Amino acid sequence: MKVAVIGTTGYGGGELIRILHNHPVFNIHSIHSSRDEMPITDEFPHLGNIFEDSLKKIDTDAIAEEADLVFLATPSGVSGKLAEEFSVKDIQVVDLSGDLRLTNPDDYQNWYKHTPVKSETLSQAVYGLSEWNREEIKQAKVIANPGCYPTATLLGLGPVAAEGFLDPANIIIDAKSGVSGAGKSLSRTTAFSEMNDNFKIYKVNEHQHIPEIEQQLFKWDGGLSPVTFSTHLLPITRGIMATIYVKLKKEARTSEVIELYRETYKNHPFVRVRKEGQFPGVKEVCGSNYCDIGVHADQRTGRLTIVSVIDNLMKGAAGQAVQNANLMNGINEKAGLDFIPMYP
Amino acid sequence: MKVAVIGTTGYGGGELIRILHNHPVFNIHSIHSSRDEMPITDEFPHLGNIFEDSLKKIDTDAIAEEADLVFLATPSGVSGKLAEEFSVKDIQVVDLSGDLRLTNPDDYQNWYKHTPVKSETLSQAVYGLSEWNREEIKQAKVIANPGCYPTATLLGLGPVAAEGFLDPANIIIDAKSGVSGAGKSLSRTTAFSEMNDNFKIYKVNEHQHIPEIEQQLFKWDGGLSPVTFSTHLLPITRGIMATIYVKLKKEARTSEVIELYRETYKNHPFVRVRKEGQFPGVKEVCGSNYCDIGVHADQRTGRLTIVSVIDNLMKGAAGQAVQNANLMNGINEKAGLDFIPMYP
Amino acid sequence: MKVAVIGTTGYGGGELIRILHNHPVFNIHSIHSSRDEMPITDEFPHLGNIFEDSLKKIDTDAIAEEADLVFLATPSGVSGKLAEEFSVKDIQVVDLSGDLRLTNPDDYQNWYKHTPVKSETLSQAVYGLSEWNREEIKQAKVIANPGCYPTATLLGLGPVAAEGFLDPANIIIDAKSGVSGAGKSLSRTTAFSEMNDNFKIYKVNEHQHIPEIEQQLFKWDGGLSPVTFSTHLLPITRGIMATIYVKLKKEARTSEVIELYRETYKNHPFVRVRKEGQFPGVKEVCGSNYCDIGVHADQRTGRLTIVSVIDNLMKGAAGQAVQNANLMNGINEKAGLDFIPMYP
Amino acid sequence: MKVAVIGTTGYGGGELIRILHNHPVFNIHSIHSSRDEMPITDEFPHLGNIFEDSLKKIDTDAIAEEADLVFLATPSGVSGKLAEEFSVKDIQVVDLSGDLRLTNPDDYQNWYKHTPVKSETLSQAVYGLSEWNREEIKQAKVIANPGCYPTATLLGLGPVAAEGFLDPANIIIDAKSGVSGAGKSLSRTTAFSEMNDNFKIYKVNEHQHIPEIEQQLFKWDGGLSPVTFSTHLLPITRGIMATIYVKLKKEARTSEVIELYRETYKNHPFVRVRKEGQFPGVKEVCGSNYCDIGVHADQRTGRLTIVSVIDNLMKGAAGQAVQNANLMNGINEKAGLDFIPMYP
Repeated sequence: MKVAVIGTTGYGGGELIRILHNHPVFNIHSIHSSRDEMPITDEFPHLGNIFEDSLKKIDTDAIAEEADLVFLATPSGVSGKLAEEFSVKDIQVVDLSGDLRLTNPDDYQNWYKHTPVKSETLSQAVYGLSEWNREEIKQAKVIANPGCYPTATLLGLGPVAAEGFLDPANIIIDAKSGVSGAGKSLSRTTAFSEMNDNFKIYKVNEHQHIPEIEQQLFKWDGGLSPVTFSTHLLPITRGIMATIYVKLKKEARTSEVIELYRETYKNHPFVRVRKEGQFPGVKEVCGSNYCDIGVHADQRTGRLTIVSVIDNLMKGAAGQAVQNANLMNGINEKAGLDFIPMYP
Repeated sequence: MKVAVIGTTGYGGGELIRILHNHPVFNIHSIHSSRDEMPITDEFPHLGNIFEDSLKKIDTDAIAEEADLVFLATPSGVSGKLAEEFSVKDIQVVDLSGDLRLTNPDDYQNWYKHTPVKSETLSQAVYGLSEWNREEIKQAKVIANPGCYPTATLLGLGPVAAEGFLDPANIIIDAKSGVSGAGKSLSRTTAFSEMNDNFKIYKVNEHQHIPEIEQQLFKWDGGLSPVTFSTHLLPITRGIMATIYVKLKKEARTSEVIELYRETYKNHPFVRVRKEGQFPGVKEVCGSNYCDIGVHADQRTGRLTIVSVIDNLMKGAAGQAVQNANLMNGINEKAGLDFIPMYP
Repeated sequence: MKVAVIGTTGYGGGELIRILHNHPVFNIHSIHSSRDEMPITDEFPHLGNIFEDSLKKIDTDAIAEEADLVFLATPSGVSGKLAEEFSVKDIQVVDLSGDLRLTNPDDYQNWYKHTPVKSETLSQAVYGLSEWNREEIKQAKVIANPGCYPTATLLGLGPVAAEGFLDPANIIIDAKSGVSGAGKSLSRTTAFSEMNDNFKIYKVNEHQHIPEIEQQLFKWDGGLSPVTFSTHLLPITRGIMATIYVKLKKEARTSEVIELYRETYKNHPFVRVRKEGQFPGVKEVCGSNYCDIGVHADQRTGRLTIVSVIDNLMKGAAGQAVQNANLMNGINEKAGLDFIPMYP
Repeated sequence: MKVAVIGTTGYGGGELIRILHNHPVFNIHSIHSSRDEMPITDEFPHLGNIFEDSLKKIDTDAIAEEADLVFLATPSGVSGKLAEEFSVKDIQVVDLSGDLRLTNPDDYQNWYKHTPVKSETLSQAVYGLSEWNREEIKQAKVIANPGCYPTATLLGLGPVAAEGFLDPANIIIDAKSGVSGAGKSLSRTTAFSEMNDNFKIYKVNEHQHIPEIEQQLFKWDGGLSPVTFSTHLLPITRGIMATIYVKLKKEARTSEVIELYRETYKNHPFVRVRKEGQFPGVKEVCGSNYCDIGVHADQRTGRLTIVSVIDNLMKGAAGQAVQNANLMNGINEKAGLDFIPMYP
């Protein structure tokens, strides 16, 4: 199958190449960027002697004609427009941006401060949380690939939220991410001398991932209250940890919760639930498509702490995108994604 | 005034030297360790040509005779024993360990799993949270210097807790610390190849700092419930951030909360409250005795998020210890502590 | 083909698993350690749900019987003994330690301060610098896998040294390595708080890799003088850069040198020579088996600077080990080694 | 004494404030920038409650009238122009840029690719290598503060170069610096995701510090040949290590060389020569004005390796600038510079 990648010069685009280049079924047919037509190795010298195609202009008609599936690794706003064009052509679309994720255009307008995508396109888009929307994804033509924080958060909450076990109020998510999540554009915040040996909170209760998290949570359980969500920047390149604090309607012991999580995820190869007393560090999933989860039910306070870690460029972006593309095409979900975490 | 330092080869000890060496009133009279009598520069080559005393054996009688004040930068268990001996001698004591902090010996037994210190000694000890126990500290002979996480947490919660403004339940503290907080002993967890580019949660609801935090919180407001407290290891050397989630009994706007914090801390030179919309990163207090606080009251969820940062070796240990020693002796609180944060 | 790995709990061992687990021809038949028989996931939780075998005791007879090839990822001294036993059994051996590299036992005694391996075993060992000893490796039963620094250095010097182009004196190698190269044993030097944000030189003119580098250099050109070699520790996990300073007997322009390097390495898929003006950073080969080289001939001083980078755990250890195992067995040299560098 | 600082928003400027704010003699009279007049805390929030002056416009007449000394922490090109204006006014000048360092304007033109400063100004400038130009500095009105790499390199070479002990050819300097040395402007190279866990060589034989190093070397010994000089970027914030390779005309033992270095620097409080077998890491001088040196004379190759470390923002810029300002005004050389290195 021929795939095209648009927005190939960003970190998400680079990661897509790393996965697709050795994919048993997908071939990278063409790579595109709004920038000059130049060899990708000018941007990513690490691809020398491996993948040396040149970037091409973005011509949606030509792409739809030649490729079977297109990955949009373009920024918010740009992705939306491209999705609108592609959605009426004969080509599958996997969009890594936030433009197609929110079903309510008003949410998008409020949180992203952009004009939302046309409703005809929006209505085609299926939210690509692979482990929870498998059947819909298999039928989809257009995928709204989830955000990195929402992926870690929702995989962490799903088992208890979907069963209606959550106490509706006081859901608190303290999230931390490596700097590659901020993308490739230069900024003072992400300059090395500013971030090295530093740790900062940057969005308190205002991250665009809040409506996305709540949309899925409320789908699972309409009685839940709005969540508290903070994001922090870690002085690492890759990795996300979401430390989630909830209460259950009915208290449970840690072992029971682990039991539930293992049962829920038993047929999902990319989610690993740790044994009691063990919590995952972000390095343990680095470079892979895994999401690792650890839980602890505190008798003293009656609160459940859930820890969920992913690699923001893999399960938080490119990895999940390919996982969805596999599902869309009846390919083994794990195809091309057999990366073992790189340790140390 | 002559001061002695015991446990000088640890990071807390090294930091005490950095502060005391240039202190306008205190002179480092002697340094001690349970290890061989060797020049301190064998352990800390960075002190070459600056401070080259040799470590001496620990002889509490001799120390009490020669020095006016002793800093105990020894590990838990060791400190307690030394404190018992010193508390009946004519010498002031500032203990950086957790051995004297908990007024209830059962708490100590349960959380530290050691035999607590004798009650005669315990009863002498004043909890050294400088900004909140000033008057007691001024009269004290023995100081239980607070833990790093509790310092950041309590300075962050004090203004609302002491006024009884806190909704009793759902106090959640998500804390993160640089690795120097783990001390100097070698362990797999703190080996460079394990911690670099990593982020880990390590104590969920079981950190020994929990009873210490609650002891002070309940002093401020006896109606509060037990707190949820998680600790994480950051891949940085110094720095702590406590992200604290609470609800107020009566909702307030961010500006009102900032007003309250600024009013509370207006005469406390080491606590800086950031303006609305601004949150401190840990680097902004690095190497200094400052504690920086930022707050945000979320209209959507009615929750207040408080962010408090300190340098774990300074305000979280040695800096606060000297601040207390200043107060005990009627010296300007800021003496010897005029470090401007090192940036970048 | 069945392979066994001994010394599986070290970083080299872990990296071997990462490569071998997905290798198209080699199957990990058994893993061994001198430690308790425990699941490898106790040591490497990142392998959960991927590879969960238990470590077995080291029984050389049993291993030689069941496996076709054994990788020794054991420390110096231990490897040597095992190699002696295996070399007389019907099994191929690839030793990642330094015990079989030096053909002159006196060199080993002088530099490693251990008893060298028996000469019968030593004489069987072929030095596994894949790109330069290909034919010998193909015939070998026992491989002495090169050290990390020598690999980077020799790949960087080979093209000019092998042609006799080097001015014999003043060969200077300034080498820098990430901390995983120091192995897994705990030490003050490699503790996070000591190494973070630090950079240190640790062996000046006394590294055990000196005789190994010179052995190969003198093989290429017997007229060369002893080299100056310094090693430094970088505050990163993986990666080696060797900055090499030499003079050529006959001055050449940068473009001519690049021409020579490209010609020399044109049939070697894992060595990439950069274009003029471009030098590789260590991240550009991270997690892969590539060695990237950049050169600059300075008209002003007549000196040639060569920059060679590898990932110390891959091309510097496990990657090259598997590359050699492929060659030994007539398998495509690149089998199992198609890792694209992880960027960023 | 009243001092003014121009270019206060850069890292050098920020570091000058950290030093001058607590200086016993100098008072920061005014701070200036070409940017808007804004409080310095907008740029450096870590200065909150410490130093909150507002930046003023750059009016050289007004500054020369009100202040006794001005520090120029402005970029190359800008500094030069300001120096030309100030050099004819009644005010002392310490320029942290490279604009006044090269006595030969052609060198400046060739290496900096800018128009050099007017010769009248150039002729007033004294090269501010404090330990070696003390007497000239004491008489100077205008100081060309040395570059960071040259400071580490020249302090490392001075004792042997000034005595004519160096073998003229084959002087090789392999230099490594933390990223703050690249300044505050944003660039892909210094973006966190690019530099973290990375190590790169960036200027091979073409750094503007080469003519500066050679100018001083040839002053010491006119028979020396041009040097080989490479610079690398370390994934740390502060710190420089220069690993220098030379041969002596007459071989010497390590102890003899250390003897010479200690004798040379015995009255220079900021240069510390390590004992035999000990080499300094960059962290050991972090945040201080020290330069630490270690040496090793290799019997095997006859080569001398010198290791010199400094903090690039302190002894490599602001620290040395204040040290020179002290000398210019008959103040104790160490005034305001009693920073003990921050460890760990």
